Amino acid sequence: MDAQDVNYREKVQESFNRQVVMHTLGAELSIQGPGIVSIRFPFQPEYTQQNGYIHAGIATTVLDSACGYAAFTLMPPEADVLTVEFKVNLLRPAMGEHFTARARVIKPGRTLSVVDAALFSPAYAEDKPVATMTGTIMAIVQP
Amino acid sequence: MDAQDVNYREKVQESFNRQVVMHTLGAELSIQGPGIVSIRFPFQPEYTQQNGYIHAGIATTVLDSACGYAAFTLMPPEADVLTVEFKVNLLRPAMGEHFTARARVIKPGRTLSVVDAALFSPAYAEDKPVATMTGTIMAIVQP
Amino acid sequence: MDAQDVNYREKVQESFNRQVVMHTLGAELSIQGPGIVSIRFPFQPEYTQQNGYIHAGIATTVLDSACGYAAFTLMPPEADVLTVEFKVNLLRPAMGEHFTARARVIKPGRTLSVVDAALFSPAYAEDKPVATMTGTIMAIVQP
Amino acid sequence: MDAQDVNYREKVQESFNRQVVMHTLGAELSIQGPGIVSIRFPFQPEYTQQNGYIHAGIATTVLDSACGYAAFTLMPPEADVLTVEFKVNLLRPAMGEHFTARARVIKPGRTLSVVDAALFSPAYAEDKPVATMTGTIMAIVQP
Repeated sequence: MDAQDVNYREKVQESFNRQVVMHTLGAELSIQGPGIVSIRFPFQPEYTQQNGYIHAGIATTVLDSACGYAAFTLMPPEADVLTVEFKVNLLRPAMGEHFTARARVIKPGRTLSVVDAALFSPAYAEDKPVATMTGTIMAIVQP
Repeated sequence: MDAQDVNYREKVQESFNRQVVMHTLGAELSIQGPGIVSIRFPFQPEYTQQNGYIHAGIATTVLDSACGYAAFTLMPPEADVLTVEFKVNLLRPAMGEHFTARARVIKPGRTLSVVDAALFSPAYAEDKPVATMTGTIMAIVQP
Repeated sequence: MDAQDVNYREKVQESFNRQVVMHTLGAELSIQGPGIVSIRFPFQPEYTQQNGYIHAGIATTVLDSACGYAAFTLMPPEADVLTVEFKVNLLRPAMGEHFTARARVIKPGRTLSVVDAALFSPAYAEDKPVATMTGTIMAIVQP
Repeated sequence: MDAQDVNYREKVQESFNRQVVMHTLGAELSIQGPGIVSIRFPFQPEYTQQNGYIHAGIATTVLDSACGYAAFTLMPPEADVLTVEFKVNLLRPAMGEHFTARARVIKPGRTLSVVDAALFSPAYAEDKPVATMTGTIMAIVQP
């Protein structure tokens, strides 16, 4: 896949920096290339559920941002990015000192892109994600 | 639908109180009855995305807890509750001073329950939710 | 919701008539109004799974067409209709002499519409659907 | 992944043979090993939608059976198999002379398994599936 925006790294990082929730969660973005990004964030007890694991919705927050920014790397300069919908499967308890959401565009499109993502923890083997997401991401171009 | 646990309100509220993330988000639970709960939380700028709206994952956090606790109201005393998967459609920007996630069990089951939820904001009419979720919730009974 | 195409009933029925699979399944369309359609089809043993019930994918076929045509009723005359994605929950065995898929647009949009549908059988009470679908439907306008 | 049933190939093939809809669609099962199966079926005009492509629900029928049987290969001898829910993304028009659904268990479980599948056509390159599915499959053990 090719980027349509030569400045896609700056554009994506700048948008990420404006997501206040990413700062709040201590999340850091890595842009691997067109269509592929990852976001890492630490365990924080403020975001746990009743058994002491990270809440599925917090995992989803980072998975969704990873999907959105993976798609955003491929969009033209004038486009904004919007998540339409996503589906999450929760496979294992979200335990560990930190987590990494890895997202990859599996079908880029002019209007809609489909992105797969998974959340990994050092508490599990590399082929055993905590959760998976499939998301539909929309490019919004103001007329 | 009938509750199997006469103390279901205490059980559900006690589990909710242990979800640290709910305290962090300033969320409050209301149990309407067996199979129906709602959770309200305020707008907080710490949880916004790049356009100043509440991040879809934070909306999902509260929707997921609402689905889980709606199902939990119907479970037997010895069961614990676990979300298996969910699907979220993002319908409108999550703007407003506060939000309410309303969840209702549409198919209770001994092992699996299906729950529908929607997130509402005073910024929109009552039939115009910010987001909708369908979730599959599992009862875990230790042998 | 208002139709943008005064001839929406003819347009939708004509497209339905071209879905050969609907003839194959013996399905019949009813257009209740803008944003609401239903499709009825009979039990046929050719479409059963290993326990003698209608296969979930056949139920999905009719649910998907119902979602698509519900959205199509609201689209402008020049638009074509395309399903982007759907999520199905299978709630009860698909038994009965006939089935009716009822679909309703819950969020119309210029490009994307979100539609909820459920499949009903006379084998169950009216509030006990066989399956539910949430689908994202796209309006395709040729430039 | 290891099979718990030494006769898993016979068990899976025998169940597949009882799915009348698979005969109707001309579908053939291949069991690659524990947790991995594929199902191939030909283009038949009886199963097309309004533009002459195979209907998304028919693609879903085969994807769902592939997911179910992939999970079934890993279940104990006494278990029956049931699909709980699935999510499908429709990526490209279902054109081509034949189609192959490939399914792989990504998370086996005693009660629930999560399975990914994709549908391929010779009309597209090998990394360009027609559709993708993530399904949740349940093992039913009669007490």
